[in-house]
Amino acid sequence: MKMILDLDTGIDDAFALAYAIAHPDIELIGITGTYGNVTVEQGMANTQALLELLGQPEIPVYAGATVAGFEVSEASARIHGADGVGNVDIAAEKADSAGDAVEFLIASAAKYGEDLVVVPTGAQTTLARALEQDETLRSIRMVSMGGALTVPGNVSPAAEANISQDPHSSNTVYQLAEDMTMVGLDVTMQTQLTRAEADSWRGSAAGDVFADMAGDYIDAYQDNNPHMEGCALHDPLAVAVAADPDLVDCLILPLQVDTEGPTIGRTIGRWEGTDVETRVAVGVDVDTFVPDFIDKLAQLFGRLAQSR
Amino acid sequence: MKMILDLDTGIDDAFALAYAIAHPDIELIGITGTYGNVTVEQGMANTQALLELLGQPEIPVYAGATVAGFEVSEASARIHGADGVGNVDIAAEKADSAGDAVEFLIASAAKYGEDLVVVPTGAQTTLARALEQDETLRSIRMVSMGGALTVPGNVSPAAEANISQDPHSSNTVYQLAEDMTMVGLDVTMQTQLTRAEADSWRGSAAGDVFADMAGDYIDAYQDNNPHMEGCALHDPLAVAVAADPDLVDCLILPLQVDTEGPTIGRTIGRWEGTDVETRVAVGVDVDTFVPDFIDKLAQLFGRLAQSR
Repeated sequence: MKMILDLDTGIDDAFALAYAIAHPDIELIGITGTYGNVTVEQGMANTQALLELLGQPEIPVYAGATVAGFEVSEASARIHGADGVGNVDIAAEKADSAGDAVEFLIASAAKYGEDLVVVPTGAQTTLARALEQDETLRSIRMVSMGGALTVPGNVSPAAEANISQDPHSSNTVYQLAEDMTMVGLDVTMQTQLTRAEADSWRGSAAGDVFADMAGDYIDAYQDNNPHMEGCALHDPLAVAVAADPDLVDCLILPLQVDTEGPTIGRTIGRWEGTDVETRVAVGVDVDTFVPDFIDKLAQLFGRLAQSR
Repeated sequence: MKMILDLDTGIDDAFALAYAIAHPDIELIGITGTYGNVTVEQGMANTQALLELLGQPEIPVYAGATVAGFEVSEASARIHGADGVGNVDIAAEKADSAGDAVEFLIASAAKYGEDLVVVPTGAQTTLARALEQDETLRSIRMVSMGGALTVPGNVSPAAEANISQDPHSSNTVYQLAEDMTMVGLDVTMQTQLTRAEADSWRGSAAGDVFADMAGDYIDAYQDNNPHMEGCALHDPLAVAVAADPDLVDCLILPLQVDTEGPTIGRTIGRWEGTDVETRVAVGVDVDTFVPDFIDKLAQLFGRLAQSR
């Protein structure tokens, strides 16, 4: 399958990027840059540096939309580092944009149709604009990381971080995207990477960088989620579900995002107003996904070390 | 099976009471009086008048706990009528309490064990007190009407009415009750009774009273929920699930009730802090339940008319 990742790179975005590159069933045709963990600019710079590190510098990176006044939250900076990658030196420099993200999404939908899957893992501003403009894109398969249906949010009791950035755009996305799976905290918080597992990647340039980033991310998790044994694998799980939908059990329901009031940013069932339904993942085959993720990254890092 | 209903009677509580009496698999051993739609006193008076109307005046009614300062909300009075039964004359008078509801619940758990099912359909204050006091009761099968996991609440974006009355007690209930099914708005709002269906009950004293109550309830629904074609069958669905657990599909998860903050009164998955899991109904076999409910009540009203 052809895949577009919409990333706010971010440590778990970096994991998702590496997993998509490592996965034999996925052909990554481009990255669109969004915001959340970092600004669009920082995320694109991180993405391009990681693509270089992972031996795929030719994959294009497109500039997405932001919102006026966006600033990285203190919490994001604490969890992902001020630079988004846990202050691990990946030699990130200002990225060369291959073009406009909205145009790239629309053109890719026309070009690839049902071979395409779009995986947004940050704020959904760019995706909402593209869906508003283009009907073909609405039928494209998508797997989003974001939201929380059956569990509390992580930036408020109601809101998950990605959705909280732009609830209006996310509400638009879940009303327009006709083939959408939501991979939210319901399932991603069940998928954990321990420090020992991440350290098993060490021994190559890329493996050391990813183990360092994971270590920083796990430090933040131990502060915020002392009941967990590692960090959650939010964004890579969305990539995995795109490749293998059977990894998750889903509820199918029309979804809204609360755009005002005390529950702003919440993803919740909608009583009326749309015929579009979303598959919301509520169960996940952790024992298949987590070892596969660790193993595929290890193999990728090993191949990269040999080819240098 | 032996059943105890914990009712705040209420129009849909009246439906639940009639359905339990009409159901051949259910032996109703007593009603405990709680609050919500009405005060404990008004609910008990309504219950006793309805038991008389339904030919079961011998079923005992026990006085449950209330909370200091409880007043019936404007919304409840609008939906259920100031008297709880849509201002339909059922000749309700101050009830004779058969004793203390907490003691009755605990004694019944000891006496009947796994033959007993407890169905709370109002504020869960009484049930929480009983569960705190008695370990045997914690293993008893329960089916509660209340809460909303995958859909918004009905008294706030977060809170369903029953849970909103006493979130602390409900939080206790879902932590202590080891064999609990939550029948919340996720499923009850899918079960609808139309005016024509309710009018099919007419032609007997009890049938006329229930059709009148339903008409009043449906009027309120058409004001509040113009997209619906009738009224929801909240409380009777809990009775039906107690009799036939296969009527619903459930998620199984540890549940908390938010007891403070913007989402106070919300039922939501819990990250940590309990081993007790609740079956939360998220799908319902409407086509089996609704006709069965209408039919069983029609048969009951017919039998009552013949015996007079």
